[in-house]
Amino acid sequence: LSNSTNMRLRLPLLCIILEVILIILFGALVEYNDDTHAKLWNANKSHSATRDDYENEFYYRYPSFQDVHVMIFVGFGFLMTFLQRYGFSSVGFNFLIAAFSLQWATLMQGFFHGMHHGKIHVGVTSMINADFCTGSVLISFGAVLGKTSPVQLLVMAIFEVTLFAVNEFILLSMLGANDAGGSMTIHTFGAYFGLMVTRVLYRPNLDKSKHRNSSVYHSDLFAMIGTIYLWMFWPSFNSAITNYGDPQHRTALNTYYSLAACTLATFAFSALVNPEGKLDMVHIQNAALAGGVAVGTAGEMMLTPFGSMIVGFLAGTISVLGYKYLTPVLESKLKIQDTCGIHNLHGMPGVLGAVVGAVTSALASPGVYGDGLQRVFADAETGKWNPQSRGGFQAISLAVTLGMALFGGLVTGFILKLPIYGAPPDTHCFEDGLYWEVPGEEEGHELNEVATPNEMEKLNS
Amino acid sequence: LSNSTNMRLRLPLLCIILEVILIILFGALVEYNDDTHAKLWNANKSHSATRDDYENEFYYRYPSFQDVHVMIFVGFGFLMTFLQRYGFSSVGFNFLIAAFSLQWATLMQGFFHGMHHGKIHVGVTSMINADFCTGSVLISFGAVLGKTSPVQLLVMAIFEVTLFAVNEFILLSMLGANDAGGSMTIHTFGAYFGLMVTRVLYRPNLDKSKHRNSSVYHSDLFAMIGTIYLWMFWPSFNSAITNYGDPQHRTALNTYYSLAACTLATFAFSALVNPEGKLDMVHIQNAALAGGVAVGTAGEMMLTPFGSMIVGFLAGTISVLGYKYLTPVLESKLKIQDTCGIHNLHGMPGVLGAVVGAVTSALASPGVYGDGLQRVFADAETGKWNPQSRGGFQAISLAVTLGMALFGGLVTGFILKLPIYGAPPDTHCFEDGLYWEVPGEEEGHELNEVATPNEMEKLNS
Amino acid sequence: LSNSTNMRLRLPLLCIILEVILIILFGALVEYNDDTHAKLWNANKSHSATRDDYENEFYYRYPSFQDVHVMIFVGFGFLMTFLQRYGFSSVGFNFLIAAFSLQWATLMQGFFHGMHHGKIHVGVTSMINADFCTGSVLISFGAVLGKTSPVQLLVMAIFEVTLFAVNEFILLSMLGANDAGGSMTIHTFGAYFGLMVTRVLYRPNLDKSKHRNSSVYHSDLFAMIGTIYLWMFWPSFNSAITNYGDPQHRTALNTYYSLAACTLATFAFSALVNPEGKLDMVHIQNAALAGGVAVGTAGEMMLTPFGSMIVGFLAGTISVLGYKYLTPVLESKLKIQDTCGIHNLHGMPGVLGAVVGAVTSALASPGVYGDGLQRVFADAETGKWNPQSRGGFQAISLAVTLGMALFGGLVTGFILKLPIYGAPPDTHCFEDGLYWEVPGEEEGHELNEVATPNEMEKLNS
Repeated sequence: LSNSTNMRLRLPLLCIILEVILIILFGALVEYNDDTHAKLWNANKSHSATRDDYENEFYYRYPSFQDVHVMIFVGFGFLMTFLQRYGFSSVGFNFLIAAFSLQWATLMQGFFHGMHHGKIHVGVTSMINADFCTGSVLISFGAVLGKTSPVQLLVMAIFEVTLFAVNEFILLSMLGANDAGGSMTIHTFGAYFGLMVTRVLYRPNLDKSKHRNSSVYHSDLFAMIGTIYLWMFWPSFNSAITNYGDPQHRTALNTYYSLAACTLATFAFSALVNPEGKLDMVHIQNAALAGGVAVGTAGEMMLTPFGSMIVGFLAGTISVLGYKYLTPVLESKLKIQDTCGIHNLHGMPGVLGAVVGAVTSALASPGVYGDGLQRVFADAETGKWNPQSRGGFQAISLAVTLGMALFGGLVTGFILKLPIYGAPPDTHCFEDGLYWEVPGEEEGHELNEVATPNEMEKLNS
Repeated sequence: LSNSTNMRLRLPLLCIILEVILIILFGALVEYNDDTHAKLWNANKSHSATRDDYENEFYYRYPSFQDVHVMIFVGFGFLMTFLQRYGFSSVGFNFLIAAFSLQWATLMQGFFHGMHHGKIHVGVTSMINADFCTGSVLISFGAVLGKTSPVQLLVMAIFEVTLFAVNEFILLSMLGANDAGGSMTIHTFGAYFGLMVTRVLYRPNLDKSKHRNSSVYHSDLFAMIGTIYLWMFWPSFNSAITNYGDPQHRTALNTYYSLAACTLATFAFSALVNPEGKLDMVHIQNAALAGGVAVGTAGEMMLTPFGSMIVGFLAGTISVLGYKYLTPVLESKLKIQDTCGIHNLHGMPGVLGAVVGAVTSALASPGVYGDGLQRVFADAETGKWNPQSRGGFQAISLAVTLGMALFGGLVTGFILKLPIYGAPPDTHCFEDGLYWEVPGEEEGHELNEVATPNEMEKLNS
Repeated sequence: LSNSTNMRLRLPLLCIILEVILIILFGALVEYNDDTHAKLWNANKSHSATRDDYENEFYYRYPSFQDVHVMIFVGFGFLMTFLQRYGFSSVGFNFLIAAFSLQWATLMQGFFHGMHHGKIHVGVTSMINADFCTGSVLISFGAVLGKTSPVQLLVMAIFEVTLFAVNEFILLSMLGANDAGGSMTIHTFGAYFGLMVTRVLYRPNLDKSKHRNSSVYHSDLFAMIGTIYLWMFWPSFNSAITNYGDPQHRTALNTYYSLAACTLATFAFSALVNPEGKLDMVHIQNAALAGGVAVGTAGEMMLTPFGSMIVGFLAGTISVLGYKYLTPVLESKLKIQDTCGIHNLHGMPGVLGAVVGAVTSALASPGVYGDGLQRVFADAETGKWNPQSRGGFQAISLAVTLGMALFGGLVTGFILKLPIYGAPPDTHCFEDGLYWEVPGEEEGHELNEVATPNEMEKLNS
């Protein structure tokens, strides 16, 4: 069995066991929070003369949640359909591991920073946070895309979600870091975790599947659906869990400008690095998004549109250059086979975002933020506020994240190396046919056969 | 003419007559409601010291409306593009009958439960309700997909919308049923109506079009666009017309968990029922959505995440098993040719949702819901509240819905059997070419022709 | 160099120079507005007992913004993918010029009507306005699609955005016109500007690329993604910047009904004008949207659903007839080569919308609008209100817009005629390969090769 890729028992068993465990833990631990519970919400309301159904957090978070949700399922899912023969797996496994991860993340994040009297309280904010954690797993998925079975992906998600929650707890609760859009917690963590996993799973003979590790015309258009949705909704992503009011509004605005500048940099450098000046879809699909990653920490701060555009421009530039010059070196020298180039889209821009966040924190002052200072920097109470040490803590947070990601990816990689998960052989990577019933593609033929003008004429007479 | 599929006169005449009737009836009967009327809204405002433009229902319903709207036009439309040669019709006829149905539904629903002094009042809530009713017609469309002309579909919509409004009136207004997400009114009704129509329209020689009644690689990816949008926005669908505050928030949350659990069950059973353990796109595209259907009634209740996940898991399971084992039997024994398998996605999960709703109603108590009880169960006033009889009324509602759907589908089916609508012959079902100008698919050829390296080099020199 | 289409230096240089200029101007001129600035927002809050984070304009405009954003990037981008070999350019150049235009528009619109003490204030409303202006550029792009290099498109955007801002300033600030959904400012302006540009760039030998100037089966489905998103979110587009409360709600409602009626007219006339009664994807993709354009001015007024449906029906009708009968004449007699038929989707329906807006303004009265009159017509203060002159100013606004668009398009067209931008030769219009690295399309072949049953069996054993 160990050499077979047959999923008939492995996948159902794992899915059913995981879901049963999830259901039991949810039954034991999870409760509606004050805004979703019929009794608690209405009791709170009647105690307050001014409290209103309109003030339920649902109305201020749910539109952001839905935008994030679209990024997770359509954005990530379709972005990875660029491979010519791996569209079913890209969008399908993305769907599977996201559906699992958001449940598991609810428990893990709740356990580390959402317990109330021994119970995990859920509502729209926990939904957003669970989707965020899921995003991190999907970033790692990009590194191993085409080279892993769905069982491996689920096992990876179990470990990655857990470590994500630990890292997030250290950063947000212990170090008091700012990271609303997840430059560190989501992008840096997901990228370096995934890169380490793919390093451990290195396949020296992957070129046997080389002919399938590329796009075709239509698969690139499907991938653009993913790209565009990620690009459009990134302002919602970065602002989804900031404080209400000016921070949320400002984060969306900063991200919008960062992405716009990033897009121009991407087109510029994509043409520049090509001998014939031709644009490369890989760059457009990925590097144009780096601007969103790179303002994931500083976006809620007073970065200004000017600052956001500089950051976005830099992010797009390093991302294209990474695809062109760094990815081949990572593969040949460091044996890191990074299918989607997550190092260029999430790794380097994530680190850039962390650095920008640290610097912007260190420059924060009551003169610029006024009474709004505490709403961005939670510990900015009178007398205790020290922007330089805040910047320092942000830098420490980046270091912690890198350490956790690399260590976690290393351990998880070795676990995934066990020959029991039905991983594809080198000759059949990037191939849907291993795990899916794949229909034929007889269309062109069909068409001429069924729609002869004569027949049609007869039918229409 | 009766044997011809030519639409030149039939379709324009029907569309123009219907639209003219709609316009006349709208002119005679439809008025802006208090929140959309310039005079009424501003008069109400000035009478109230605290009333504010921000409190217009637009801000609390419109984001949900747009999510529902996406499900109706993108979700249903693209879900049905899985057929290799019926993409134009899937997304195009979906578009046509939805555009008609939402207008007709506004009148019918308004007539039955929205009249104010002889006028139908419209606003964002009526828009959501009209889209809901349209959803029911599109479910039925799934059963007859590929076997009906657009004229037949419009005629079906006329009758189905009307009966939908009657059934909805009986359930919600007469029986006082809860059904915010429409497990009964939308899914059960739409499914059994459509199944009865396709039964009456049974084609013994449909296998003449068998070679077109299947997917190709890219058509399955287009269909996944539909699936993912339905899946993501289902929390908005189920919560779109609940009461404000905790019920709306809770419904979205319950649906989110139900769908996540359903997805794991779908992948598990899809692999399990395949001899080689391969996943089937049909299951992923459809069964993963059954979790949304199955919490359509109980979602607004205190079902808990735990309960939602159990319901979702069951729904995914029965849906996959239905596709694998029941659909072939329905076709061979009961002569029900169900193109999209709506019995598995909407029929059985809809009935499950109705039963779960009845049970959850019967278990409701002031101890659990507190002051929130009346906001879920409208008749739960002091002294008169009896959860068991409420559960009973829910069960009666299911029975009424099944009766109305089967009877309505029977009558409508016979009307659609008249040989005047340009229905496709058995040999040309599932074929866009009958009703659309279809372009060639010369691409592969084209590509090599136009982009020879030599020519390109010359141009770029 | 002048005859070469090589973009290696031209595109990067232009993008980088433009972005650097943008960044410098943003640094010098752009500031957060009161709702996005940490200091100002919180200072305002503490001065008002009742002001609340919930009242930040973000919560009342951002969902509309995101819908508009989807229309700009997915709607316009995918609508233009209908060409068989121009999908990368359609969605890619749409992306590039939109990302540039929204930044440039922020400056130009801010300069003309958003300056505060020498600074341009930005927030969600400026984001919506910038996207609106971008929409106008993308409309013009539709006329020259396939016949222009990305450098030409960026140059066009520079001029068009500037003139858009001037025209918008004249209409809204000087003439006090109503045009919330942009029938005049966006659609009429964008259409006639683009038509004039394409007239000046007339290519007598364009038929050398005729074989590529058409769709294939899948490219039409990609285009339908664009169509459906535009159609669904048009109510958000027209209502995005109206006043809060009843005007926003009413605009969305009117647009919804106009589009529904328009869709039935489109299907009716598409079948009617075809000898075999077959529907034409070009009509469905485009004409069904004309109803949104045609209520772009009057949508916020008391047009009533009845009036909206009549306008939508007319718009769909003239649009289909335009595609069938007018477009060929424009090309053969007036030498206007309009790739996407923007005259039928934006030109004529835009003019219709302007006329409907003028008439509806002229019929406005305090009897119908009550206290809501000033909230639609800003100058409707006691004594000064004169609906007839308001209607007259609306008509003048249309004339100004047409003049500005035609003159601007003429000048811009001649600038774009300079042989320095790498425009495609007549033989290679509508061809991605000129500007993009295009992958092969070996899929069908690949499939049979990699997934032989024998191999699969072995792997699964």
